[in-house]
Amino acid sequence: MMLDQVVLLAAVTVLGLLEQAYFSLKVIYARRKHSVSPPATTGPPEFERVFRAQANCSEYFPLFVFSLWLAGIFFSQALAALFGLLYLYGRYLYFHGYAESAQGRLEPLYFSAKMLWVLIALAGAGVICTMTQVYLGLDLLHFFSHV
Amino acid sequence: MMLDQVVLLAAVTVLGLLEQAYFSLKVIYARRKHSVSPPATTGPPEFERVFRAQANCSEYFPLFVFSLWLAGIFFSQALAALFGLLYLYGRYLYFHGYAESAQGRLEPLYFSAKMLWVLIALAGAGVICTMTQVYLGLDLLHFFSHV
Amino acid sequence: MMLDQVVLLAAVTVLGLLEQAYFSLKVIYARRKHSVSPPATTGPPEFERVFRAQANCSEYFPLFVFSLWLAGIFFSQALAALFGLLYLYGRYLYFHGYAESAQGRLEPLYFSAKMLWVLIALAGAGVICTMTQVYLGLDLLHFFSHV
Ligand SMILES: N[C@@H](CCC(=O)N[C@@H](CS)C(=O)NCC(=O)O)C(=O)O
Ligand SMILES: N[C@@H](CCC(=O)N[C@@H](CS)C(=O)NCC(=O)O)C(=O)O
Ligand SMILES: N[C@@H](CCC(=O)N[C@@H](CS)C(=O)NCC(=O)O)C(=O)O
Repeated sequence: MMLDQVVLLAAVTVLGLLEQAYFSLKVIYARRKHSVSPPATTGPPEFERVFRAQANCSEYFPLFVFSLWLAGIFFSQALAALFGLLYLYGRYLYFHGYAESAQGRLEPLYFSAKMLWVLIALAGAGVICTMTQVYLGLDLLHFFSHV
Repeated sequence: MMLDQVVLLAAVTVLGLLEQAYFSLKVIYARRKHSVSPPATTGPPEFERVFRAQANCSEYFPLFVFSLWLAGIFFSQALAALFGLLYLYGRYLYFHGYAESAQGRLEPLYFSAKMLWVLIALAGAGVICTMTQVYLGLDLLHFFSHV
Repeated sequence: MMLDQVVLLAAVTVLGLLEQAYFSLKVIYARRKHSVSPPATTGPPEFERVFRAQANCSEYFPLFVFSLWLAGIFFSQALAALFGLLYLYGRYLYFHGYAESAQGRLEPLYFSAKMLWVLIALAGAGVICTMTQVYLGLDLLHFFSHV
């Protein structure tokens, strides 16, 4: 494994880390604005939507990073990085949509969920191909290109 | 690092991602069924148990994946993959047990916690062996097999 | 990628896993002590502070591990491991400070947030250097050392 085979995945991950840090800062500002001091997590709906938006994005962030790297290493770095950027963009819209209204979270949620499914599918396909090669000696990609 | 040295870890991770996606869908259905619209996270106990079951599994998922990969890379891929599968099976039982009743979560929780401890122990042992080899020039495994 | 190039990162990660396991056990004890049975997450402030301290540390744990590894692989393993240890120490203080009082969480929070920013910055710098080398053929480190 050479660094150039994963550097795009690393770049998308760093962007994701910055996005998560940004969401956290937004929750801290919302806590101040609406006077919701820790350990409380409930308050006016405006606060709760920002709080939940960050919580939801945090919950999915590891799933996203794992899918990104598996798809990039076992399938294609360029494709994984592309869908990864789209996912992060979707999550940006999700956060701001949810902060506006509960309804506003839905469209970007569907979009980012689709991007995550694509990454998981690429990861799954790549892993299955590698397993058939390693354990059955069968090169599936080569096989299909000759059918 | 060759792909065949981690492909089983990758396969178990993809299964874990699918399991987490399944738990998320279950929360979405429970929100509809019990009419608990975001950003609310409280409602009838049936809903709260499903909600917390997914939250608890999500909280532990990164710990699980990190332990799995460290155990697999520094100790043994096959053993890590095996205990990883058992962990995911335990979490499946935990989710459904918790959805049934708070009591129902306990037995599978103990089981999956044990599997996680095994993975952390394998990771720790593997890392210590590698460190003594790299920094002290001592091959512990070789050493013990000659005592 | 050889194991000696990441073994310190692995060691810090295992310490982090043990720390998270310790925080989880603390929540379980607090649940017993204050009789807050799952799925409830609210109760006396003493319980809620312990509960939120663990939730907050869990939320940041994946961000920490991803930053640690990217900083260590793309910048410097020794520096990443050092700031990683400081982060984990800060989180230990955060947990116990927060358990004492909401105020008590603030100083260690600022400290561990700073350590996390350092790791993200090292990761970002390392990734940018590698990208300019891979895609532009420019060796930035070499370039600056000759200016
Ligand atoms: N933790 C999530 C799991 C499922 C999920 O991702 N739900 C989507 C669609 S209902 C969502 O936007 N949840 C809002 C939230 O987590 O606050 C939940 O409680 O809803
Ligand atoms: N976040 C967990 C941390 C500790 C933990 O994993 N507890 C186990 C045993 S009490 C559990 O099943 N918790 C239920 C839950 O998280 O809803 C909690 O709040 O309890
Ligand atoms: N989930 C966090 C996100 C932002 C954050 O990390 N906040 C710091 C400073 S206010 C904290 O210590 N939060 C306490 C907590 O999460 O319970 C929150 O709800 O506050």
